[in-house]
Amino acid sequence: MSSDTKELPGAAVGPDALLRASGSRRDFLRNSALTALAAGALGACTTKDETPKGNNTKGAASADGGASAENAAKAAKPGVHADSDLSGGSTAPHPDTTAISARANADAMDAMHEKGIKSFPAKTEGKGNQLLQPRMDKGVKVYELTARELQWESEPGKRVKAWAYNGQVPGPQIRVREGDRVRLVVKNELPESTSVHFHGVEVPIEQDGVPYITQPPIKPGESYTYEFTAPNPGSHMYHSHHNSAKQVGMGLLGAFIIEPKQKRAIEKVDVDYVMILNDGFHGYTLNGKGFPATEPIVAKLGQKVRIRFMNEGMMIHPMHLHGMHMTVIDKDGWPQPAPWRCDTLNIAPGERWDVIVNCTNPGTWAFHCHILPHAESEHGMFGMVTALIVQK
Amino acid sequence: MSSDTKELPGAAVGPDALLRASGSRRDFLRNSALTALAAGALGACTTKDETPKGNNTKGAASADGGASAENAAKAAKPGVHADSDLSGGSTAPHPDTTAISARANADAMDAMHEKGIKSFPAKTEGKGNQLLQPRMDKGVKVYELTARELQWESEPGKRVKAWAYNGQVPGPQIRVREGDRVRLVVKNELPESTSVHFHGVEVPIEQDGVPYITQPPIKPGESYTYEFTAPNPGSHMYHSHHNSAKQVGMGLLGAFIIEPKQKRAIEKVDVDYVMILNDGFHGYTLNGKGFPATEPIVAKLGQKVRIRFMNEGMMIHPMHLHGMHMTVIDKDGWPQPAPWRCDTLNIAPGERWDVIVNCTNPGTWAFHCHILPHAESEHGMFGMVTALIVQK
Amino acid sequence: MSSDTKELPGAAVGPDALLRASGSRRDFLRNSALTALAAGALGACTTKDETPKGNNTKGAASADGGASAENAAKAAKPGVHADSDLSGGSTAPHPDTTAISARANADAMDAMHEKGIKSFPAKTEGKGNQLLQPRMDKGVKVYELTARELQWESEPGKRVKAWAYNGQVPGPQIRVREGDRVRLVVKNELPESTSVHFHGVEVPIEQDGVPYITQPPIKPGESYTYEFTAPNPGSHMYHSHHNSAKQVGMGLLGAFIIEPKQKRAIEKVDVDYVMILNDGFHGYTLNGKGFPATEPIVAKLGQKVRIRFMNEGMMIHPMHLHGMHMTVIDKDGWPQPAPWRCDTLNIAPGERWDVIVNCTNPGTWAFHCHILPHAESEHGMFGMVTALIVQK
Repeated sequence: MSSDTKELPGAAVGPDALLRASGSRRDFLRNSALTALAAGALGACTTKDETPKGNNTKGAASADGGASAENAAKAAKPGVHADSDLSGGSTAPHPDTTAISARANADAMDAMHEKGIKSFPAKTEGKGNQLLQPRMDKGVKVYELTARELQWESEPGKRVKAWAYNGQVPGPQIRVREGDRVRLVVKNELPESTSVHFHGVEVPIEQDGVPYITQPPIKPGESYTYEFTAPNPGSHMYHSHHNSAKQVGMGLLGAFIIEPKQKRAIEKVDVDYVMILNDGFHGYTLNGKGFPATEPIVAKLGQKVRIRFMNEGMMIHPMHLHGMHMTVIDKDGWPQPAPWRCDTLNIAPGERWDVIVNCTNPGTWAFHCHILPHAESEHGMFGMVTALIVQK
Repeated sequence: MSSDTKELPGAAVGPDALLRASGSRRDFLRNSALTALAAGALGACTTKDETPKGNNTKGAASADGGASAENAAKAAKPGVHADSDLSGGSTAPHPDTTAISARANADAMDAMHEKGIKSFPAKTEGKGNQLLQPRMDKGVKVYELTARELQWESEPGKRVKAWAYNGQVPGPQIRVREGDRVRLVVKNELPESTSVHFHGVEVPIEQDGVPYITQPPIKPGESYTYEFTAPNPGSHMYHSHHNSAKQVGMGLLGAFIIEPKQKRAIEKVDVDYVMILNDGFHGYTLNGKGFPATEPIVAKLGQKVRIRFMNEGMMIHPMHLHGMHMTVIDKDGWPQPAPWRCDTLNIAPGERWDVIVNCTNPGTWAFHCHILPHAESEHGMFGMVTALIVQK
Repeated sequence: MSSDTKELPGAAVGPDALLRASGSRRDFLRNSALTALAAGALGACTTKDETPKGNNTKGAASADGGASAENAAKAAKPGVHADSDLSGGSTAPHPDTTAISARANADAMDAMHEKGIKSFPAKTEGKGNQLLQPRMDKGVKVYELTARELQWESEPGKRVKAWAYNGQVPGPQIRVREGDRVRLVVKNELPESTSVHFHGVEVPIEQDGVPYITQPPIKPGESYTYEFTAPNPGSHMYHSHHNSAKQVGMGLLGAFIIEPKQKRAIEKVDVDYVMILNDGFHGYTLNGKGFPATEPIVAKLGQKVRIRFMNEGMMIHPMHLHGMHMTVIDKDGWPQPAPWRCDTLNIAPGERWDVIVNCTNPGTWAFHCHILPHAESEHGMFGMVTALIVQK
């Protein structure tokens, strides 16, 4: 990309500077990669890979529209068709060399976008938010959590320092049932003290995890045991409540779900998915990974999916689902007075929102934070992007 | 303004630095203008222009209160009255020279505020969000959108580089009816590839506008055609979904409204207004313009106004209406279970909120983002400020 | 704390830089204090002070859990127990010297956390948001507000320049009754002009407080009188509407509450508390003070507390209550169609949200903004943190 397309004459701050200021540090991280790419063979854009994914063309729409052409770059309508002959067209608004250069630049940028999308879901080391099976001890569900420092591959090839429970970012998913007796044994192998707070869970005060108010901090090398009877059902969280801006940011967090004794009719779903949003030290992540290493949600046409959004970051993230709406049923584990619909749900730090998606529209639907610098840069989609795949 | 009123002793960061960090780059942009103004004849504050606008004095309030005096600076109560004689009053808390200097500084600042307000609505070149009439082709409503780079006057005298559909920021407003067959022919005259996503519209997957998932990117110089039957009614948007943090930020966005086949009673209004919020490259804008170049909403006493808020920026914007409340009816085009009232509505990126205002209170009511650095600086109101004018 | 625990290999930005970028300027402010502390006798951590506050152990939980040990650092389960002998344990993951150093660092950090918490609620000079009693003048409730510059102690030992009404940040709380005739006499002793806007109050236009639209600005040394009949009840605000990003940020704000003629059943509470959130010039504050100088809310077991959240800052603040949920009843003074429950309520600038807490869970419950860099740093909790104390 030539830098001459980036400057705003008359403005104090150019778009790229502004985007970086909005939080995208990917520009910096990818800079060397980009330079290498741009110096390489990007002109050789493989058009055979341009066939749309999820091309569930059917009905009236398929007759008149859609992008079904194999070589889309020159396809006739409907689809893409060239209005200017790049090798010498007289209608081109720029001199030939400019047009050719623009096209080469566009191809180079597009290749980066394509590469990211085609690699989705990309493999990375480590997977967070895995369901943790308890050990039973005389009717008590016992969970063991060990906090330790490790390297976390947050997106392909990007390793960051993390503080993690049981080697996972987010920590393992804990699911209990309302009324269960639950014990959590927390072992601190970090270089600083810690504690665990059960965010949203109405525990007795001595189990609340706030050092010097409800307990002493758990010193390095020590352990601490929490125990309570699972109270109010819903989508809750557990995370550090000591030096928490750093410790939660470094990865000491996870989902704590209390299933109700009696499910409401609206809760009977085919897929129950937890999506933990984060930003900060590890970049913009969904369940600890940035696109293309995020995990798609997969359902069959006609199925119902429940998504439990949880924000463990420092910023709002308005999550936008393409193609279908979300029906909001719960806030912080409490039922809303009446379900309501949206396609973009603003989720603030500490909030949990539960939604239902009726999978009525087949395809691979983008699903991302709509603060666009959290989801896309000139180098392609990244960060808080995943997909809901509705299979026919 | 002397800089000695701006520093916080004991604080690491002074108020002005903090305001700038909050996103106001107007300070920088206006700096030279301010210097020129401050060096000029600002002491000669024309008090004859201080008569309040929108002075709809009536009823009990007019008998006891209000600012109806012509020369308000010296008016008796009710209104303004001087407690200190600036030319030598013994009750002044400061020495005379300090008081005189403070008053001169205050007058200079006030003159900038007054100038901005008195010029509202200020003329600028270009107007976005204009209703686009379709061409009919065998029962299909055909809209043509050409994306092209241009200079956009976002506020009087401030021209920024924009990428725009049909020369407008926001792009032309598209209004169709539920069940309409709609075709959009998009021509890309930009230096990079693009695509169009219909945000909130539940189209078939191949019309969803996500390059490499649902279609190839639209290369520079090429065109692409979308076609679908208008599904779920409501206040939706269309915008680029390729390199979108930059492309949407540069102006590739617009309103896409699907009128329902059957209107609800609450939707029967006298004025139907779309307000697209934006931030970033073009500054803080409402429908592509910053105050005083924003457009007032005008209604008659007793009328009902529907406002369709749409956020195409990167930040939340809690919009605050003075003098009357808003009744929230729709979120993202979906009816809320029950309408609810507020005067400050928080609108996150990608969200749409529809509200009704019953215009029961006559006057010129300020209407602005309540993140104050998005709306006012020492140089006066700017950015995300407009007015709802209720005429008697 | 050694700096080697702070760097993220492979990341462009380390956690501390990122936390500072998120808005915590406390690191800077406390830097010299920290250096002094770290050089001192922090190793001598007084374990006798580690007894939990609010240790309302009872019922099943007390039998199996809780941190009731006096010397908690070495207590047997349930509670804290040492898994490694720091003076030479073979299971320690690090060499002895590293472990000893880590423990000393942890103790030093913990001591800062403990010190902050144990000093809560810390005394500071000045108290904002105090109820202002009106003077009666022929049936009119008359309030006098004088705006003046002063030094404000926003947290222990931190004095910042403030612009305040009647010497208070926030300004005095004004409570009137629906239908009351109210007069506010505003005297401006600031070095610049000002005005007062009644945010959320549906006054006649000439009382709306927007200079050059509804009144002239109130010049330095002058006064201005507002008068109206209290209209729509609810939790409203008053603040400057002139150069407001600076003036409101400097402290020219307060609560303006209109009690309804008829209270709803849900409004009958034991404690009615106003909590004004702010950020910016004075740091992150609740009612003008940062933790540990914030004020706890105190109630007895079984009582009902109403909290009126008001955001006068520039950022969202999702307020999270531990141990109990909040029932949201009003938005901007208007009843929600049906009350709904949450534990984390996102409050945007200009918004007011009223909630009810049924105090069913005894203890000292942390209550804080869940944007963690607004509430905790390596030096302990600060800023937007308080507690709801439910006494048995």
